[in-house]
Amino acid sequence: MSSSFGTLFRITTFGESHGGAVGVVIDGCPPRLELNLAEVQNALDRRRPGQSRLTTQRAEPDQLEVLSGIFEGRTLGTSIALIVRNLDARPGAYEDMADLYRPSHADFTTEAKFGVRNWQGGGRASARETIGRVAAGAVAKAMLQQLSNIEVVSWVDQIHTFNAAVDESLVTAEMVEAHETRCPDELTANAMSEAIMQARRDGDSLGGIVRTVARNVPAGLGDPVFDKLEATLAKAMLSLPAAKGFEVGSGFAGTRMTGREHNDAFVPGPDGTPVTNSNFSGGIQGGISNGMPILFNVAFKPTATISSPQQTVNRSGEPVTLEAKGRHDPCVLPRAVPIVEAMTWLTLADHWLLQEAVGVLD
Amino acid sequence: MSSSFGTLFRITTFGESHGGAVGVVIDGCPPRLELNLAEVQNALDRRRPGQSRLTTQRAEPDQLEVLSGIFEGRTLGTSIALIVRNLDARPGAYEDMADLYRPSHADFTTEAKFGVRNWQGGGRASARETIGRVAAGAVAKAMLQQLSNIEVVSWVDQIHTFNAAVDESLVTAEMVEAHETRCPDELTANAMSEAIMQARRDGDSLGGIVRTVARNVPAGLGDPVFDKLEATLAKAMLSLPAAKGFEVGSGFAGTRMTGREHNDAFVPGPDGTPVTNSNFSGGIQGGISNGMPILFNVAFKPTATISSPQQTVNRSGEPVTLEAKGRHDPCVLPRAVPIVEAMTWLTLADHWLLQEAVGVLD
Amino acid sequence: MSSSFGTLFRITTFGESHGGAVGVVIDGCPPRLELNLAEVQNALDRRRPGQSRLTTQRAEPDQLEVLSGIFEGRTLGTSIALIVRNLDARPGAYEDMADLYRPSHADFTTEAKFGVRNWQGGGRASARETIGRVAAGAVAKAMLQQLSNIEVVSWVDQIHTFNAAVDESLVTAEMVEAHETRCPDELTANAMSEAIMQARRDGDSLGGIVRTVARNVPAGLGDPVFDKLEATLAKAMLSLPAAKGFEVGSGFAGTRMTGREHNDAFVPGPDGTPVTNSNFSGGIQGGISNGMPILFNVAFKPTATISSPQQTVNRSGEPVTLEAKGRHDPCVLPRAVPIVEAMTWLTLADHWLLQEAVGVLD
Amino acid sequence: MSSSFGTLFRITTFGESHGGAVGVVIDGCPPRLELNLAEVQNALDRRRPGQSRLTTQRAEPDQLEVLSGIFEGRTLGTSIALIVRNLDARPGAYEDMADLYRPSHADFTTEAKFGVRNWQGGGRASARETIGRVAAGAVAKAMLQQLSNIEVVSWVDQIHTFNAAVDESLVTAEMVEAHETRCPDELTANAMSEAIMQARRDGDSLGGIVRTVARNVPAGLGDPVFDKLEATLAKAMLSLPAAKGFEVGSGFAGTRMTGREHNDAFVPGPDGTPVTNSNFSGGIQGGISNGMPILFNVAFKPTATISSPQQTVNRSGEPVTLEAKGRHDPCVLPRAVPIVEAMTWLTLADHWLLQEAVGVLD
Repeated sequence: MSSSFGTLFRITTFGESHGGAVGVVIDGCPPRLELNLAEVQNALDRRRPGQSRLTTQRAEPDQLEVLSGIFEGRTLGTSIALIVRNLDARPGAYEDMADLYRPSHADFTTEAKFGVRNWQGGGRASARETIGRVAAGAVAKAMLQQLSNIEVVSWVDQIHTFNAAVDESLVTAEMVEAHETRCPDELTANAMSEAIMQARRDGDSLGGIVRTVARNVPAGLGDPVFDKLEATLAKAMLSLPAAKGFEVGSGFAGTRMTGREHNDAFVPGPDGTPVTNSNFSGGIQGGISNGMPILFNVAFKPTATISSPQQTVNRSGEPVTLEAKGRHDPCVLPRAVPIVEAMTWLTLADHWLLQEAVGVLD
Repeated sequence: MSSSFGTLFRITTFGESHGGAVGVVIDGCPPRLELNLAEVQNALDRRRPGQSRLTTQRAEPDQLEVLSGIFEGRTLGTSIALIVRNLDARPGAYEDMADLYRPSHADFTTEAKFGVRNWQGGGRASARETIGRVAAGAVAKAMLQQLSNIEVVSWVDQIHTFNAAVDESLVTAEMVEAHETRCPDELTANAMSEAIMQARRDGDSLGGIVRTVARNVPAGLGDPVFDKLEATLAKAMLSLPAAKGFEVGSGFAGTRMTGREHNDAFVPGPDGTPVTNSNFSGGIQGGISNGMPILFNVAFKPTATISSPQQTVNRSGEPVTLEAKGRHDPCVLPRAVPIVEAMTWLTLADHWLLQEAVGVLD
Repeated sequence: MSSSFGTLFRITTFGESHGGAVGVVIDGCPPRLELNLAEVQNALDRRRPGQSRLTTQRAEPDQLEVLSGIFEGRTLGTSIALIVRNLDARPGAYEDMADLYRPSHADFTTEAKFGVRNWQGGGRASARETIGRVAAGAVAKAMLQQLSNIEVVSWVDQIHTFNAAVDESLVTAEMVEAHETRCPDELTANAMSEAIMQARRDGDSLGGIVRTVARNVPAGLGDPVFDKLEATLAKAMLSLPAAKGFEVGSGFAGTRMTGREHNDAFVPGPDGTPVTNSNFSGGIQGGISNGMPILFNVAFKPTATISSPQQTVNRSGEPVTLEAKGRHDPCVLPRAVPIVEAMTWLTLADHWLLQEAVGVLD
Repeated sequence: MSSSFGTLFRITTFGESHGGAVGVVIDGCPPRLELNLAEVQNALDRRRPGQSRLTTQRAEPDQLEVLSGIFEGRTLGTSIALIVRNLDARPGAYEDMADLYRPSHADFTTEAKFGVRNWQGGGRASARETIGRVAAGAVAKAMLQQLSNIEVVSWVDQIHTFNAAVDESLVTAEMVEAHETRCPDELTANAMSEAIMQARRDGDSLGGIVRTVARNVPAGLGDPVFDKLEATLAKAMLSLPAAKGFEVGSGFAGTRMTGREHNDAFVPGPDGTPVTNSNFSGGIQGGISNGMPILFNVAFKPTATISSPQQTVNRSGEPVTLEAKGRHDPCVLPRAVPIVEAMTWLTLADHWLLQEAVGVLD
């Protein structure tokens, strides 16, 4: 099972790529939050297929519909149900694939687990499941923006072998949105665009890294044991389709440093609160935010759907050749950016609410 | 809060480094499991301080005590409480540090979150908290070994800049235990040992990577959305002290491959079940195991406790110099191996039990 | 928050009486369950307003719509979203009441908790919320009927001072459905009908008791501590609108018996399994089913909405007289029957799935 | 499984009557709560066996031991582990009963569920499990007393056919403690005492009702759907050994009233906040407290352990006669009072913390 994420700000998603609708129920969003539905729609638009030449051409308007929980523009404190209809589903396009297992997709494992599969698209493993996350993330963002000046900015930091040069203290959402790749380093971004278009022409696909900075997160969010802030972020990110890795602060590179190099020295901050001279901790120490920018990377593999012929087997265990049809993204990175941001907002919102209870005796 | 991990095979840990005891309550362990307590003690011994010259010299026997849940050598199906007393705690050694924040430790963030801190050691952020995980992991292992032939082998794959050459299809627990570093590549292991001893002499510390293979995990474990197998593993691993990164299968390196290179082609397996020609997926596709070996890496930063003088601030916000005393590991990697294994067993045990309910109509 | 119920067979409901839709997400329903949607609709029809002269005349067809989780007539094992549109909402009817607190309704407490209220009907406290429960209960019933021969029969056992005489070993769903009151004792049922119609004419309302028998529940369902079968049933039932009490087996009357009278003597059963000579335990001992029929009562207060003038206060704290308009049930008991049954099926389904994990070593 | 109760103020209990220890882990207790351990011990003393001639003569000092979570007299915000050793266990006294099923105990159902049983006493179904609840309840009480002026008073309101006359607006803890029965109506209490002593002499046992008032609970605690305040209280109470029923406010008697009689009219309160003229709601409307006293009853069956010979069957299904030995309470009611209070404090504490998150935008 679990289609749910979060403890207090808790979401439950539902929907397959070719069922009637995809959506989310948000339980635990505080009451009286003014919610601008245009901003929720805007978040969905950033995730939407067909938004640029780099993405799948499936034409889904992904129009938000509110079923419950909002009254006169404000949240009621009770469960909020948001849905988006599946309109441009073409189940016929998948008929040839009903009996075979697409390589590095979830077709085989879904049947291994459930003994059944909606073969009309990716079923529950479809990236359309993330629509509910993005809609809920926009609500979490609205809540945190009313409570704090937290900023979350994600961007495409690497595609294939192209690495962007981005000043993470200065990068803004506007700079990210300025390029179709969502890479704010224009020179590299142009090369990435070309590489993606070339991959599409070659019937191939590319992967990469989305990098995120969360600024102005107050010290004290997170937990010392299993629900460490980095642990919940790691789960949030590895639960995304195609994600293969997560690192916070110095991450894997930090393993090659020594303690003397890696320790972040505390110095008195401008307002007396300690700050650190370096930030190899990535804004989190012992599972709890320390007030410095939170920095992490998420690795995404190259899209499993490619247009080249591939070797695989069918349900009877016989070798077959797959000639993939269907519309797909040659690189998921540009569309992954709003999804990573949404999971970040959701994680922070949940930890924020949890911290309210911790501070009850203050 | 949450000191709990798992849904059905659920553990709750407690204890600080200098309180009366550390321990764990296991809720949901199936009844009638024959439990050899010597094996649980053996798991604790692998985690124990002072086991080799590479580790802290804190002398803790870490003797297991069973408070409940086991009767005549078998589990009762009800909650199992296991504790270990803290014996060699020396709170006096920490007195100088009661008012200051050790760099890259949880001292500052603990106070930011809770407004209070047990300064006699690391408190709840101490690695002694992992005693409960290791004890519970041994119970999870006993359960899965009765149900399957799953093997979990973790080893030190990198320390600082030393990378081991290990054949992950052949490596065994015995090969790992053969060297004090728990690196099964003897040549590299010797260099690692020397580097660690050198770091200790230099008042410095080292980090590295623990790599894990889980063999014979049947296809079908995991979940398609938030509780993906890799997502729960990522949370499990990032919840460990000093962990900074997690990657499964091709991980971060896979971001530089193309889809054609990266896709794991299915071919008929020896018994008719599909297997894959390559394993960039790391044994998991769409959140669900596919029957191939599960492979993942965990990055650990260099130990934050070092013996060199360091710049920091005290609770009043004044700059001070920290001359760390106390006993500590110059490199946590050798002792991290049994902890990573424990979290792997716990994660697999929970997914195994969850899958029982999924298959109820079979 | 929590709009969720259950651990493995877990439902999350959403919707207000006057929002766009009410519904439910079922997470954890096993895959490959053949689901006859007509039976789910039938369950909704038994709960529907306007089904007889005894109920509110609000004209809601309560037509089921499936958004996800079902493919070719079978469950996929992933989250199932079911909705029903609100069609006959008349928000205008509530305008006079927007500023005042209806006695014994949730108007005042909703504002005390959330600081906001959808005054167009009962909001989240509306009995329309139970639509999601009834739909999900029908799915739980379908699952258990495929796995067992469990029968759940609820009936109206008391309305006001009229007590039915029902042989709980013989009563069937058909006998219950035969009368508009859902009381299977025709003589008493006719008196109940008259009393309800009289209460409507008097601008008054009546309460009563729904009694339930669950037959053929195998021994072993439940839990020894907090999730005792009777404890989860109690929570399930007290979570229903207007419920004021729950008792299992001998219940409150049993407090006047002695141990010698009350103890249920075990005797060898027809197939060798022990059965009990009496059933004051109500089929549950120590939180776990013992194979005997499970018997419990739920007390429902008289409907809070009445047509007589009532004293109350408005949001400014001023005394006002309320002349209730709107359509309502003079007695909720007949429509409570399918809802109590649904919560019983949901509770049993969850405990059944939990028991799968307990028995993993068998 | 679940040995846990609560969402934010979450407890996990462990221990059997004849294992090494019973205890509790409290996760989510806020930091910096000053905790007087003597008051926790005092709560345990009120629950302790052997405290009066009315209770079992098992001689257990039930001495509290703190394993973690408290430092310098204050909570750390992390998990608190509290244990009590089992000292006067006499497993030999149960040897004759190892193979048979005591009537109306959990012996048979425990084996039906788990296939194994610690026959040395009641195992997990023993009332000694409630030690953890009482200890945790004392912590919850300390927290709420620091945050509010909430009072919780429980008392024995009925034993067998003796009903106390108690003014629930005036009754105090001192009045309850004044009599060995914990019934504050002395005349009735004396008759109850005699009846209990007579039952003991007769080898019989008695049941009864514990009534509770919770005063000064602010309006707004609880939840509108599944976690209604009365629903969580019902679960809390029905999870107690020997509990058979729960009713809030008018309860079962209220089913015989009409809506006009039963509705609680709102009138302006002394400080402008609405209060109600009557309190048939029992302080809760729509799942949420309304500021009036919360009133509920819990029904306890007569103790299942009696000294008279009883008919039963053994594990082989053969009829046998049970001559119960062992020490037991002829009536659990006096000792149930502190346990009911503990579960009330735990329930209120959890809802209080949950409400902190709801009010985050205030």
